[in-house]
Amino acid sequence: MFDTIHEECGVFGIYDKTGKTDVVRSAYYALFALQHRGQESSGIAVNDDGVITLHKDLGLVPEVFDEETLARLGKGTMALGHVRYSTTGSSQAANSQPLLVHHIKGAMALAHNGNLTNATELRESLELDGAIFQTTADTEVISYEITRARLVEGSIEKAVERAMYELKGAYSMVIMSPQKLIAARDPNGFRPLCIGKRDDAIIFASESCALSCLGAEFIRDIEPGEIVVMGPEGLKSIKTHCTGKNHMCIFEFVYIARPDSVIEGVSVHEARKKAGAILAKDYPVEADVVIGAPDSGLDAALGYAEASGIPYGVGFVKNRYIGRTFIQPTQNEREDAVRIKLTAMKATVAGKRVVLVDDSIVRGTTCRRIVGLLREAGATEVHLRISSPPFTNPCYFGVDIDSKDKLIACQMTIPEVRKSLGADSLGYLSIAGVRSIAEESGCDFCIGCFTGRYPVDPPANAYKSRFETKLSEKG
Amino acid sequence: MFDTIHEECGVFGIYDKTGKTDVVRSAYYALFALQHRGQESSGIAVNDDGVITLHKDLGLVPEVFDEETLARLGKGTMALGHVRYSTTGSSQAANSQPLLVHHIKGAMALAHNGNLTNATELRESLELDGAIFQTTADTEVISYEITRARLVEGSIEKAVERAMYELKGAYSMVIMSPQKLIAARDPNGFRPLCIGKRDDAIIFASESCALSCLGAEFIRDIEPGEIVVMGPEGLKSIKTHCTGKNHMCIFEFVYIARPDSVIEGVSVHEARKKAGAILAKDYPVEADVVIGAPDSGLDAALGYAEASGIPYGVGFVKNRYIGRTFIQPTQNEREDAVRIKLTAMKATVAGKRVVLVDDSIVRGTTCRRIVGLLREAGATEVHLRISSPPFTNPCYFGVDIDSKDKLIACQMTIPEVRKSLGADSLGYLSIAGVRSIAEESGCDFCIGCFTGRYPVDPPANAYKSRFETKLSEKG
Amino acid sequence: MFDTIHEECGVFGIYDKTGKTDVVRSAYYALFALQHRGQESSGIAVNDDGVITLHKDLGLVPEVFDEETLARLGKGTMALGHVRYSTTGSSQAANSQPLLVHHIKGAMALAHNGNLTNATELRESLELDGAIFQTTADTEVISYEITRARLVEGSIEKAVERAMYELKGAYSMVIMSPQKLIAARDPNGFRPLCIGKRDDAIIFASESCALSCLGAEFIRDIEPGEIVVMGPEGLKSIKTHCTGKNHMCIFEFVYIARPDSVIEGVSVHEARKKAGAILAKDYPVEADVVIGAPDSGLDAALGYAEASGIPYGVGFVKNRYIGRTFIQPTQNEREDAVRIKLTAMKATVAGKRVVLVDDSIVRGTTCRRIVGLLREAGATEVHLRISSPPFTNPCYFGVDIDSKDKLIACQMTIPEVRKSLGADSLGYLSIAGVRSIAEESGCDFCIGCFTGRYPVDPPANAYKSRFETKLSEKG
Amino acid sequence: MFDTIHEECGVFGIYDKTGKTDVVRSAYYALFALQHRGQESSGIAVNDDGVITLHKDLGLVPEVFDEETLARLGKGTMALGHVRYSTTGSSQAANSQPLLVHHIKGAMALAHNGNLTNATELRESLELDGAIFQTTADTEVISYEITRARLVEGSIEKAVERAMYELKGAYSMVIMSPQKLIAARDPNGFRPLCIGKRDDAIIFASESCALSCLGAEFIRDIEPGEIVVMGPEGLKSIKTHCTGKNHMCIFEFVYIARPDSVIEGVSVHEARKKAGAILAKDYPVEADVVIGAPDSGLDAALGYAEASGIPYGVGFVKNRYIGRTFIQPTQNEREDAVRIKLTAMKATVAGKRVVLVDDSIVRGTTCRRIVGLLREAGATEVHLRISSPPFTNPCYFGVDIDSKDKLIACQMTIPEVRKSLGADSLGYLSIAGVRSIAEESGCDFCIGCFTGRYPVDPPANAYKSRFETKLSEKG
Repeated sequence: MFDTIHEECGVFGIYDKTGKTDVVRSAYYALFALQHRGQESSGIAVNDDGVITLHKDLGLVPEVFDEETLARLGKGTMALGHVRYSTTGSSQAANSQPLLVHHIKGAMALAHNGNLTNATELRESLELDGAIFQTTADTEVISYEITRARLVEGSIEKAVERAMYELKGAYSMVIMSPQKLIAARDPNGFRPLCIGKRDDAIIFASESCALSCLGAEFIRDIEPGEIVVMGPEGLKSIKTHCTGKNHMCIFEFVYIARPDSVIEGVSVHEARKKAGAILAKDYPVEADVVIGAPDSGLDAALGYAEASGIPYGVGFVKNRYIGRTFIQPTQNEREDAVRIKLTAMKATVAGKRVVLVDDSIVRGTTCRRIVGLLREAGATEVHLRISSPPFTNPCYFGVDIDSKDKLIACQMTIPEVRKSLGADSLGYLSIAGVRSIAEESGCDFCIGCFTGRYPVDPPANAYKSRFETKLSEKG
Repeated sequence: MFDTIHEECGVFGIYDKTGKTDVVRSAYYALFALQHRGQESSGIAVNDDGVITLHKDLGLVPEVFDEETLARLGKGTMALGHVRYSTTGSSQAANSQPLLVHHIKGAMALAHNGNLTNATELRESLELDGAIFQTTADTEVISYEITRARLVEGSIEKAVERAMYELKGAYSMVIMSPQKLIAARDPNGFRPLCIGKRDDAIIFASESCALSCLGAEFIRDIEPGEIVVMGPEGLKSIKTHCTGKNHMCIFEFVYIARPDSVIEGVSVHEARKKAGAILAKDYPVEADVVIGAPDSGLDAALGYAEASGIPYGVGFVKNRYIGRTFIQPTQNEREDAVRIKLTAMKATVAGKRVVLVDDSIVRGTTCRRIVGLLREAGATEVHLRISSPPFTNPCYFGVDIDSKDKLIACQMTIPEVRKSLGADSLGYLSIAGVRSIAEESGCDFCIGCFTGRYPVDPPANAYKSRFETKLSEKG
Repeated sequence: MFDTIHEECGVFGIYDKTGKTDVVRSAYYALFALQHRGQESSGIAVNDDGVITLHKDLGLVPEVFDEETLARLGKGTMALGHVRYSTTGSSQAANSQPLLVHHIKGAMALAHNGNLTNATELRESLELDGAIFQTTADTEVISYEITRARLVEGSIEKAVERAMYELKGAYSMVIMSPQKLIAARDPNGFRPLCIGKRDDAIIFASESCALSCLGAEFIRDIEPGEIVVMGPEGLKSIKTHCTGKNHMCIFEFVYIARPDSVIEGVSVHEARKKAGAILAKDYPVEADVVIGAPDSGLDAALGYAEASGIPYGVGFVKNRYIGRTFIQPTQNEREDAVRIKLTAMKATVAGKRVVLVDDSIVRGTTCRRIVGLLREAGATEVHLRISSPPFTNPCYFGVDIDSKDKLIACQMTIPEVRKSLGADSLGYLSIAGVRSIAEESGCDFCIGCFTGRYPVDPPANAYKSRFETKLSEKG
Repeated sequence: MFDTIHEECGVFGIYDKTGKTDVVRSAYYALFALQHRGQESSGIAVNDDGVITLHKDLGLVPEVFDEETLARLGKGTMALGHVRYSTTGSSQAANSQPLLVHHIKGAMALAHNGNLTNATELRESLELDGAIFQTTADTEVISYEITRARLVEGSIEKAVERAMYELKGAYSMVIMSPQKLIAARDPNGFRPLCIGKRDDAIIFASESCALSCLGAEFIRDIEPGEIVVMGPEGLKSIKTHCTGKNHMCIFEFVYIARPDSVIEGVSVHEARKKAGAILAKDYPVEADVVIGAPDSGLDAALGYAEASGIPYGVGFVKNRYIGRTFIQPTQNEREDAVRIKLTAMKATVAGKRVVLVDDSIVRGTTCRRIVGLLREAGATEVHLRISSPPFTNPCYFGVDIDSKDKLIACQMTIPEVRKSLGADSLGYLSIAGVRSIAEESGCDFCIGCFTGRYPVDPPANAYKSRFETKLSEKG
C-alpha cells in the first residue's frame, strides 16, 4: 500500500573448509539480516564436496525455508544465499537466485546484486551464438559470460576476471564453484560487498549487519573492481579491474542499507543522523517536537532533533502484526488503510508544532496521509523535512525507482509538492548535503537519481523496464 | 526465546443497527490493533439479525482470517472480536474465544479479558448441578452464570447484572445476544475497557488504540462495575455494581498496553516517559547516551534522556522478519540467538557509557544477553534502569507472570541481580514511583505483583496454574 | 458434484491396558478404514493415565492429522476416534467429534454415530435447567444426560445405562472415561458396532473393516441395547436395554458400509451381489454386458452378471486424482464435469446392449449423465438396474437423504424416471428383495426410507433439518 | 511403500486460434487424465498472442494448480501441459516441465516424454561450445538443439526437423512457439502421441484418454518420426523422419497407459484382457475364483476368468483415502502397511482356490504381502499369474525400472520366485504372448526389458542413472 522505493538484492557467501560451521544455517540466519534488501524471493545453495544443492522460491526467508528444507540442503563447506527484491512486473519464480548452472567444467552457483547496463546487448550476442535463456535476470547473462571465458581460461577466477571485461554497470556478486567461493564487485563499486571472518570461516555479504548477526568479525569492504577468491589454499585477491574509483550509491546510506551496517567505513545510522543535522541547519523552524516517519525517517529525525535542540518524540506507533496476508481495506475504506498500519501518537503531537522527517518522497501518497494523521491527532503545524534531494531521474544500477510520471518531484515544483502534501513547510536535503552525509568514506558517490548525471553511461536503449515482455514480443 | 510476561487478552465489540458499517472487517482491523494483548488465538463472531456465526482458531489474526473466512462470516449489525494470550500449558483450540453458546433464550457470544479468582469454586458448584465444561476458560463459567441468571431474569442485561454478584476477580468482557451488545467491567476495574463511536456505530474495546485504527472517536472508559448495554433502543448504563473504586492494573501502563492508548485519561506513552524521568531523578549517572531495550523500553528511555539531559540514542536494530516460523539456533548456537534478533548499534554505543532502560526483568536471561551485546559492541559502561519495581509476587488478575522459582527478583538481592546481569549499576523504579506514573488518572492502582498486597483476596487454593491438569486428575 | 446420499459417522475405540499398543496410531489407521462413513471432520482423543488429550478438525483424516499432531497426542492406554459426515448446512468445526467434556467426576470423551429422535425435547428440557450448548450435535445432549445420571449413579457405566432410558432413536457410541472405554448401541440397533481384539487390546468399531486393517480379530457385534465396558478389570456386558429386536438399517448393506465389512454375520459384498442376482431374476433382459456404476454399483453388477450369465465388464474408468481441491468446470462446461471424473470404456460398451447397475438413485442427475456417457461411447441399449427400492421417505436415524422435492422417485413415476434418465428399461429392487439381501442375519431391517414405516416413532415435529438455525432464531 | 515401475511423463497441447476454448482449463482437466503417467511435477504454459506464461511445480495437478494460479495463467490461444514421473534421485523442481526458454527467435516452451540415448554426448558437445545447463532433463538438450538449428533454418518446424537428426532414443514431445504448436515423435515411436479435435481446437496428447475427458474426438496417432505443425494456416505434417518402423513400448499396454486409452488402434483394456486370456490358456489351473491385484491386475484377471470359465471375483478393497500425506507405519508395524491400504475380501476368497493376476513383479515385496493377505483371509490355494514376462533388463527409453540387484527375476529362477512369494503356482506371460496382446496394431513392439534386445542401441556408457551426480563430480 505504501509507495516506496523497491529495494534490490542481498548476497551472502560462506566458506569453512574445516566443515565445523553449519554453513546452511549460517546462510539462513544471515539472510534474515539481509531481508530488507529484497522480499520477493530467497534462496540458498550448499556445496558438499563439489556437489551443489539448491533450494529457492518466491517468498521471504521464513516462508521459503523450514526445518525440512534446511535438512534437505544438508551440510557442506560452502553456502551461497540470496534475497531478491520485489516488483510486480517480473515477479517470477524463474528469476529467483542463486542461479545454479552446469557447464563444461562442472557446476556453478551465482548470487548477484546490481544491474548490468549492457545486458540486452550481451544477451543478443549470446543468442546469436545459440544461447538459450530461462530467466530474465542479469545473472544468467553473467553465467554465460563466465562459462564462455572458462572455455579459454584455466581457472574459475581467471574466467571471472576475463568476463568482467564484458560486463558494464553495477554488480556485486558471489560465485560458488565446486572448489571455490568468489566475490566480485564492479569497477565503479555501485553496490556494497564486504568480507568477514568467524573462526575458520570466510564470509562475503552485501552488508556488515549480516556479519554482526552471526557474531563474525568485519574484515574490510571488497574494493570496486576487486575479485576475492576463497579456496582450499586460502584467500586471494585479484585487482586487475581496480581503478581507484568508488561510485557507491548514496541511496544505500539514505534508505537501502540497515542502520547498523557500516559501508566504506561509515555507519549508516550516523550518516542518516548527519543528514538530519544538515536539514536542521539548512531548514530551521520554530517547533515543539521532531518526529520521524517509521521506520526509515527515525535516524534522521534524531539527527535533526539533536542539531536543532528541539525535543525528539515518538510520533507514530506502527502495527507490527500486519504482514503479507493482511487484507487491504476496500476502496471506500482506503482512508483507513494508513491508519490501521500507523497511528499518530496524540500525546506527542496534539497541540504541537511538529517537524516530521522522512527519507524521501516517491509518489507522495503515503507522505500526504501521514501528514493528515498528524493533523487529525491535533498537530498545529507540520514541517516536513526530507533527508535526500528530490528524485527526478531513473536509476540504472539496481534500484527500482518508480516511473517518471509517478514521481511527484517530476510533476510539481517544490512549493506545489508542499501544498499537495498539506505541510506547512518543506525542506529537501541539498545535493551538496547528500554528498556530505558519508564524506569520511572518501567515495565519489553516484547521485544520478537526483542529478541525472551518472558515473557510467546509461543503457543505449534508454529505459529498460519490462525486459521479458519485449523478448516475448519478438517471438 | 525471550523470557517475557505473557500478555493477556483483548476484546472488541461493534454495533451499528443501520447496517452501514462492515462490522466483520471493522473487527478484523481492530484485532490487529489489539494483537499485542494476545497472540495465541483470534476469533470473530458476527450477528446477522439474531443469527450468530463464529470463526476462531489458534493463531494470529492474519493466520486465522483470510478473505474466504471473512466472506464466510458475512455481514451483520454486530460483531465481537477476541485475541487470546499465549502460554504453553493451556494452548488449546477449545479455549479460543469468543465462546458461542446456545441456551434457553437463544444464542450468546462472549469475549473476556481477565481472571476470576473464584472460578474453581463456581465451576465445582455448577458441576454438582449437572453442568459440563468443554474448555478450561473462565468464559465458560461466566456463560453458565449468566445463563442460570437468565432463567429468572427478564433480560440479558439483568442476567449479567445478577451474575456479577457471583463473579470475583478481574473481568472486562463484551457479550453479544441476538439483540444486544453488552460490555461489563468488574467492580475493581482491573482491566481496561472503553467506549467509542464512529458514525452510527458504537464500539467497545480493551484499548483506545483499537478506536484510533478505525478512525473512531473515544467516548469514555467504562467504569469499574458498570454494565453498558447497546441495543435497538440505544445506549444504556447499569451502575449497580459501581463502588467508586478503581484498581486498574499498573502493569497495563508499564508494559501491556500499546503506547498510543489512553487509559483512565492518561497516555500510556506519557506514563512510560514519566517512569523514565523518575528513574533519571532517582538513579542519576554520568553517561554518554541513553538507549531503550526494543520495543518495550524505548518510551521510558526517552523520558530518562529528557530528564537527565543525556542524549537519547538508538541502541539496537531489531530484525523485523523474524516471526513464528523462525528456526531457533540449536543449543550450541544459543549465544547467537539474541544476536540474530537484535543487533547492538556500534555507532551509538562503542566507547560510550550507556544507560540501558527496560520495562521489567523476568528471568533475566534476555537482559543479560542484551547487556552482553552492548559490551561486545564496545560500550564501556552499562547502567541498567528498570521502569518498574522488581516482580516478586504472582498476579491473580489476568497477567501470566513466570513462576516464582524463575523470577530473578525472587532468587537474588538487587546487587546480586546487577552482578548476574553484568551491569555496572542497576536501578528499579520504586513502589512510590510506579504508583505515580499515571497519577492524573486518580486510580488506586493494583500493584500486587510488586507488593503482594492485592485489592481483593487471591483465590483460596493459593496458586492457580494448571487448571486443566487438576481437572483431569480428578477423573 | 455427484448427487449422493450423505454417509453418516464412524466410531472407533481401543483399550490396551498393557500400554504395548500405540493406540493413537491404531486409531489413525482405523479411521482411514472408516473414512467412507464420514468425510467432514476427523478426530482422535487419547487417554494417558486419566488425562485426555484431543485433536479434531474439519477435514479428512490425512488433512487433520500429520506427524506433528500425532506426536502431540502422545501415548496412552486408550484412544477414541471419529469421522463425521458431510453436509453443507451444518459443516461447522464445533460439531466435530469426539466431544471432550469435563464434569463433576472428571473428563469424558464421546464419539457417536446415529441420530436421536428426541434430541430437541431433551435439549429444551436441559436448557430449562440451565444447560448451555456449544454445538448442534446430539453428542452434546448425550453428554449432558450421562453427566446428570452420573450425579446419582456410582459408575460411568451405570450412568450410561440410566441415561439410555432418556435417549430415543439411533445411536452407536463409544465413551472414554478416565478409567474405562464403553461402547453402547441403541435398543433397535440401527447402526452397526462391533468388538474386536488384537493381542491385549480390545477394540470397538463401527465396521469390521476397521479391525481387518489393523490385523485384529473380529469377536462379535454388540447387541442392540447392549453396553460393553472395558476397564482395568476386563470386559463386562450390561444388557438391561436388550430386547431381542434388531432393526439394523438395510442401507448399510446397500450403500454405506465398506464391501469387506461383515455386519450381523453377513458379508456386505455378498449382500450386494445377492441384490444384483435378485435383480437379474426379477428384471431379466437380453444384453451383451453387465457393468456397474463405480464404485457403489460394482458388487451388484457382478451379482447380476453371474446370475444372468451375461458377461461382466469394466464399463468406466474413474479418475483417482480428483479430490477436494479439484476446480469444478464452470457452468457452460458442466456437461464435461462427469466426463472428467468418469470415462466410459468404449472397448466394453461400443455396439453393445448394456446392463448398468447402480445402488440407488437420488436426484437422478448423475445417473442421467452416466447413461449419456454410455450412449456417447456407442452403447446401443442401456438397461438400468437399481439394487434398492425407490427412495420416497426421510431417514430419522442417521442417514442424510436429500429433501423430498429433490428425490426423483418422489416426483415421478417409475416409467417417467426411466424416460428422464434416458434408459431403455429400468428395474428397481423390490421391497421383498431388499429385505432378503442379508436375511441370514435374522434382522428385522429398518427399511423406512423405502416404505415410510419405521421401527420407532419419528420425531414429533416432523422433519429435523436445520436445527441450529431454529436455535438462533429463538434468541 | 509399494514397489512399482515408475511411470514416465504425459504431454498435452491444445491450440484454438478462435480463442473460444479456455485452453488453460482444458490443459488442467487433461492433465488429470494423464496424471497416472507422472506424479512428481505438473506444469502448464499458456500462449497469449505470442507471450508465454508458465506455472509449474513439484506436486500433483491439484497440488500445483488452484483457482489463483489458473487465473494468473489467464487466457490464450494455445496451452501446453506436462506431468512428470517420480523417482527419489532426481526429484528436483528445476526438472519440472514444460521448459520455457528464450532464444534469438523468441520464446519456446517444450514438454517431453521419453529418454534420449545420446543425451550425455549432446550435452558435452554443447558445453564445449559454451552452453550452460540449469536442469538434468533431456528437454533442455532438445531445446538447445532446436535453438541451434533455428539459427540456420527459417521456421521453427524446420528447426525441429533438423534437430531430430541429432536426437537418438525415445521422445514424444509438444513444442509451443509464439505462433505454432508442434508435436513430434521419434522415428521408432517408443512413446505414444495422438491428435484430437474439439470444435475449432486441435489437441495433442500422450494418450487418447485425455481426449475423452475433454469430450474431444480422436483423429489419429502421430506416426513415428512425424512432425505435426498446427499454426495460423492450419495443420501440416512433416514426414522426413518417418521410416515405417513402429517400436512402441509394449509396457504401455501392460501397465503404463490408462485402460480406456486406445493406442495404435488397440484398446489398452482389451490388450490386458487378452494377456489374461493367454495366461489362462498357457497356465490353466483348477480354481474357484479369479481375482486381480488392484488396480493394475484387474483387466487381465477379467480376461483370465472369461477364458478359463472360472468365476471372476472382487478380491481386495483398496483404501481410497490414502494419499501422499499418509503416515507410514513404523518398522515394526510394517506388516500392517499393506493391510491398511488393501484388505482381502474374505467373502470372495475364504476356503477358495484363488487365481491371483497381476501385471508384473518388480522386487516381489508387495506381491508377497498380497499373497499373504489372501492366505490370512482363508484362501486354500493361491495361483499367481503375471500378465507380462519377467523383467530382466533395463529400459533406456523412458521407463524407470528398478536396479538389477533389486529385480526379483534377475536374482532367482521362476520356481524360486514362486516359493519366495508363497504362491502355489506361478505363470508369467511368455515373450510370444506379450508380443501378441496388441498384435492388431501391427507394431513391432519394443520388448527390450524382457529380452535385452532393443530396437536401437542403448547409450554408450552402459547404464544412465544419476546423471546429475556425475555432472557435479566433474566440477
